[in-house]
Amino acid sequence: MVNVAIIGATGYGGVELIRLLGSHPEVNLAYLHSESYVGQRVCDVCPHLPWVKAELRPLDPEAVARECQYALLSVPAGKTLELVPKLLDQGVRVIDVSPSFRLRDPTLYPEWYKFEHPHPELLAEAVTGIPEWHRERIVSARLVAATGCYTAAALLALAPLVADGLIEPADIVLDGKTGVSGAGRTSLKLAYHYPEADEDASAYSVGGHRHLPEMLQGLQALTPSKVGLAFAPHLVPMTRGILLTAYLAPTGGAAAETLRASLARRYQDELFVHLLPSGVWPHTKWTAGTNHCFLAVGTDRSTGRAVLVSALDNLGKGMAGQMVQCLNVMLGLPETTGLGMPAAYP
Amino acid sequence: MVNVAIIGATGYGGVELIRLLGSHPEVNLAYLHSESYVGQRVCDVCPHLPWVKAELRPLDPEAVARECQYALLSVPAGKTLELVPKLLDQGVRVIDVSPSFRLRDPTLYPEWYKFEHPHPELLAEAVTGIPEWHRERIVSARLVAATGCYTAAALLALAPLVADGLIEPADIVLDGKTGVSGAGRTSLKLAYHYPEADEDASAYSVGGHRHLPEMLQGLQALTPSKVGLAFAPHLVPMTRGILLTAYLAPTGGAAAETLRASLARRYQDELFVHLLPSGVWPHTKWTAGTNHCFLAVGTDRSTGRAVLVSALDNLGKGMAGQMVQCLNVMLGLPETTGLGMPAAYP
Amino acid sequence: MVNVAIIGATGYGGVELIRLLGSHPEVNLAYLHSESYVGQRVCDVCPHLPWVKAELRPLDPEAVARECQYALLSVPAGKTLELVPKLLDQGVRVIDVSPSFRLRDPTLYPEWYKFEHPHPELLAEAVTGIPEWHRERIVSARLVAATGCYTAAALLALAPLVADGLIEPADIVLDGKTGVSGAGRTSLKLAYHYPEADEDASAYSVGGHRHLPEMLQGLQALTPSKVGLAFAPHLVPMTRGILLTAYLAPTGGAAAETLRASLARRYQDELFVHLLPSGVWPHTKWTAGTNHCFLAVGTDRSTGRAVLVSALDNLGKGMAGQMVQCLNVMLGLPETTGLGMPAAYP
Amino acid sequence: MVNVAIIGATGYGGVELIRLLGSHPEVNLAYLHSESYVGQRVCDVCPHLPWVKAELRPLDPEAVARECQYALLSVPAGKTLELVPKLLDQGVRVIDVSPSFRLRDPTLYPEWYKFEHPHPELLAEAVTGIPEWHRERIVSARLVAATGCYTAAALLALAPLVADGLIEPADIVLDGKTGVSGAGRTSLKLAYHYPEADEDASAYSVGGHRHLPEMLQGLQALTPSKVGLAFAPHLVPMTRGILLTAYLAPTGGAAAETLRASLARRYQDELFVHLLPSGVWPHTKWTAGTNHCFLAVGTDRSTGRAVLVSALDNLGKGMAGQMVQCLNVMLGLPETTGLGMPAAYP
Repeated sequence: MVNVAIIGATGYGGVELIRLLGSHPEVNLAYLHSESYVGQRVCDVCPHLPWVKAELRPLDPEAVARECQYALLSVPAGKTLELVPKLLDQGVRVIDVSPSFRLRDPTLYPEWYKFEHPHPELLAEAVTGIPEWHRERIVSARLVAATGCYTAAALLALAPLVADGLIEPADIVLDGKTGVSGAGRTSLKLAYHYPEADEDASAYSVGGHRHLPEMLQGLQALTPSKVGLAFAPHLVPMTRGILLTAYLAPTGGAAAETLRASLARRYQDELFVHLLPSGVWPHTKWTAGTNHCFLAVGTDRSTGRAVLVSALDNLGKGMAGQMVQCLNVMLGLPETTGLGMPAAYP
Repeated sequence: MVNVAIIGATGYGGVELIRLLGSHPEVNLAYLHSESYVGQRVCDVCPHLPWVKAELRPLDPEAVARECQYALLSVPAGKTLELVPKLLDQGVRVIDVSPSFRLRDPTLYPEWYKFEHPHPELLAEAVTGIPEWHRERIVSARLVAATGCYTAAALLALAPLVADGLIEPADIVLDGKTGVSGAGRTSLKLAYHYPEADEDASAYSVGGHRHLPEMLQGLQALTPSKVGLAFAPHLVPMTRGILLTAYLAPTGGAAAETLRASLARRYQDELFVHLLPSGVWPHTKWTAGTNHCFLAVGTDRSTGRAVLVSALDNLGKGMAGQMVQCLNVMLGLPETTGLGMPAAYP
Repeated sequence: MVNVAIIGATGYGGVELIRLLGSHPEVNLAYLHSESYVGQRVCDVCPHLPWVKAELRPLDPEAVARECQYALLSVPAGKTLELVPKLLDQGVRVIDVSPSFRLRDPTLYPEWYKFEHPHPELLAEAVTGIPEWHRERIVSARLVAATGCYTAAALLALAPLVADGLIEPADIVLDGKTGVSGAGRTSLKLAYHYPEADEDASAYSVGGHRHLPEMLQGLQALTPSKVGLAFAPHLVPMTRGILLTAYLAPTGGAAAETLRASLARRYQDELFVHLLPSGVWPHTKWTAGTNHCFLAVGTDRSTGRAVLVSALDNLGKGMAGQMVQCLNVMLGLPETTGLGMPAAYP
Repeated sequence: MVNVAIIGATGYGGVELIRLLGSHPEVNLAYLHSESYVGQRVCDVCPHLPWVKAELRPLDPEAVARECQYALLSVPAGKTLELVPKLLDQGVRVIDVSPSFRLRDPTLYPEWYKFEHPHPELLAEAVTGIPEWHRERIVSARLVAATGCYTAAALLALAPLVADGLIEPADIVLDGKTGVSGAGRTSLKLAYHYPEADEDASAYSVGGHRHLPEMLQGLQALTPSKVGLAFAPHLVPMTRGILLTAYLAPTGGAAAETLRASLARRYQDELFVHLLPSGVWPHTKWTAGTNHCFLAVGTDRSTGRAVLVSALDNLGKGMAGQMVQCLNVMLGLPETTGLGMPAAYP
């Protein structure tokens, strides 16, 4: 058993971590932090968890370090910049799902997040939280930078094809659809007010969503050619789920079957990434509450482009599930530990 | 006042026509046909219309021709092949929203609809039901082929840019999202069962949706270059609405502003097509129950592609609203007659 | 044509008034007030109304009085207490949908709304905004107090039965279900955040909702016996709609048919209240965006209680539609003026 | 390890059983039956379970008996009448969630289900599947009749109060709201077509739902006084969840606190039934995918009636979860085995 802290335990990511780790056989939830609900018990803030009597505590990095070997951070962009070095210095291993340590190039932070990064050396050290691609480094990492939800869906789908040189890396079109829980629990904007978001579909952050530089970074590492990626995310009326549709230019006339073979090869031993049979397309509903990702690929009849679809749960494989999978890797456990439950369908 | 028949009055398109034409000042709903509910009154089948006591009648082309000058057909693909020539022969002007007369090239029917077209001469005569582009011919048309819902959204958005030569016509990517009412009222498939469609997003008919040849035909008419269009439609959990996101390669480095100017010029006098200010993106909710279409355009930061979004109601501008607008054109009335009510928001 | 002011034009009630009155043949929207968006145009705040260029103005009662003969007030409880007397003094006729003037008994305000009522004389003068029951007084009223949405649904359903002495007035059970738009546009509470309200049903304000004293007042006026009404409202995941189910103890063994006859008699000439055939139960979807109310009645098999169901749109007959209907009465117009459009179904 | 058969493995109840039992440490899913998909593998019918390769088999009671010690039946009313005696005769212990063996009194079957019951002796033997009330008999039962979803919610809420004589048993009003998955997977009725059920609330089976006799039977067993229960169920637009609101007449002026104390006493040691603090009301969303039931009680201000609310997942505690809990009891295991995962919130 290891002692684990959740920083930001009452946001949607944090509550999902409590759910997943609450029945994890090797984890003891030793420190649950909340900014808004300090002193209250989890069961008061989350009445659906009446048996979780643990008290929510303020942010005290020393106490975290005294009591825990691992810390899972689920707070907004920029909030963990100071905390992470303190935890690392005291020997706590950290998985941070904020964007604070995702980008390798420090100059991207002023451009995309409007702050100078105070710890560029940690950017070099942080390992991207996708075990399917980085588990060798995650095993011994001090700092894992879990990815954004769109990024997880995009990299799992596109990385094999870019790595195998099967698509033009400069000509990727990505259309994303997300459920509203991606907006988090604390940001009560009008756009997420039920009467506004219900029965509506719309595009947002067109041409420049913050997950874009992460996606580019992840793909660029796999090819010497310049990666170009046109991305527009959309809000659709559901709570959980990311559906990503990529329109790709196969190189050298590669058929959809060639692309499928590349994906099959890459993921044949993976337990959370599933390539669907030809003609079956993934549904986000299949992934709700899970760490699973479903992929499918086909060909467009008019242009010959390959069409690749990726589905996962933004709070699961796109967030808390990804973090637990990384924790399992760090602990040397089977990666499915605590992540075995399939989606409650329908 | 003219007498109008609705063929297929109890499907979603038909009921929407009853709604719109019920308060149209120049139309008398003289003949309401239904296959499934012959002999019942509209108010029995549609209890939300308790004041519509008219009886639903079987399909009798002679009676339609005796009693009506106009017929609006809202039945599935192929069902109107026999009916339309009969009505035309007897002097009835027809607006058909089925695909039966949409494609100019008869060889496309075996390929896309699995039947030989029995009346290729009518394919040559039929006018596409988009008044913004074809009103001069609709005025005097005997047969208007109303378009599919995706097609309406796509042509309104893309046609000006193709016509003005501002985008590479061979390199269009179109990502569609539709509400479930597009599946109609009679097709009770598992995919549209509430527990399946709710809280779910998925792709379908990837690479070869039946609206594709219509879209290609509409755009190809505007340019000598070959049009290529990669299209994947998606089902999202809402009842009404089409949102279409196009990723375009501007020619000669045309900026988004150039594209915007083209759209602005084309639609400045149109009452149902609205170009949004820069940075505002359309919501399908704005269009529910209406004949309006909203457009917006921007630039992708990574690739320089233009991103163009189009929103409309699949049962409105994508179906019944389009038909009523065409009817108004045929009648020489202001096109907004009977179509004035904005969306009930939220 | 009369000049009309909307006070609170950018809330959900206000926007619905703009929608309904925008095509009203006898109304000129002369003054549109907004607290949050002063100086902006309606089309900037409501991009789905691009043709409404009118500027939103601050609250200036003198200007309202100078420019308008009628004012429709759609702002929260208590906000109109000062405004209404000023408008009345200057000859403006007022329809106020806030609770400020709904209760006849001034002592109920401290109890239910936590303020002393400053104008008890106006409470005596105000007329309840249900034309089906009060149109004779509305015709000449200076001040109409439009009812709450639950109240409209409850009074239309229960009033005939209480008035005819067919049910035990002390033994009424009312179970309400509402869509989330009833919470308004400005109250961004966590409970109405899409991920919380979606896929959820819950009770709230159990045993003491603020609409209760209005309902009791409306029914008590019809019977010398003491009225007792157990009421629990529920939030269900939809945007519009109120569904109210009443469980009633018929007096003297009155059958459901007797109750039905009472309702039929009372509403046979009404254009907005529809009694359904036996065995057909109303759907809120039938009422979306309209001023219609549907009623149905049956008998419980185990207890012999009558079960009465009432459905309407909380923003329609429960708010803006009710106000427009009252305005029509005050103007001596047909009550359906501007309210003719049926629900966009589905 | 015991071998378990699921009869009806591809309906919503069956799929939920596969999900729950798939990770149950003491259960081997040895026989998966399906009527519609014989010969296909589970992963073909349920692509979200790509690792479940088991083949779906036809109904062969002898094979079931040869291979399994337990059979969980999840098929519609009446379908298990022949099967159950065969299985019992061969020593298989059965949990049947159909209504076939729920009612003690055989004369109720012709009245409510339109068939003569062929095995009245089994009606006497069958034990109601609510462990909180019947676990002593379930331990050794050959045949457990799992209850309907409304019945589970109603009995858990009302039974303590009836047993303790705290409410008038003849004067119970029960208002139910259910998600659409209660309609099952195979019944593709128009009422459950997404565009119809979405954004809608309606009552159905008013005054005589089939779960009524079960509820009456369960409560009548606890009191010598006649039980009377007015019940109207409603469909609301969500996939999972039952919310039941009971309006009760406390005896001898019992306060809500007295009722609360009765519930607290009864369920203090139960792990799946949770009494909420005063003023907190349950949400169905808290229960999605789980075997939990939440209860809360308060007082109506106008009539003094007690208001009691009960929430559970119709496919969980109302169906598959209930069956697994019963199985655990029969196996002598902790009742939470395989049922530990809390709801994925939100």
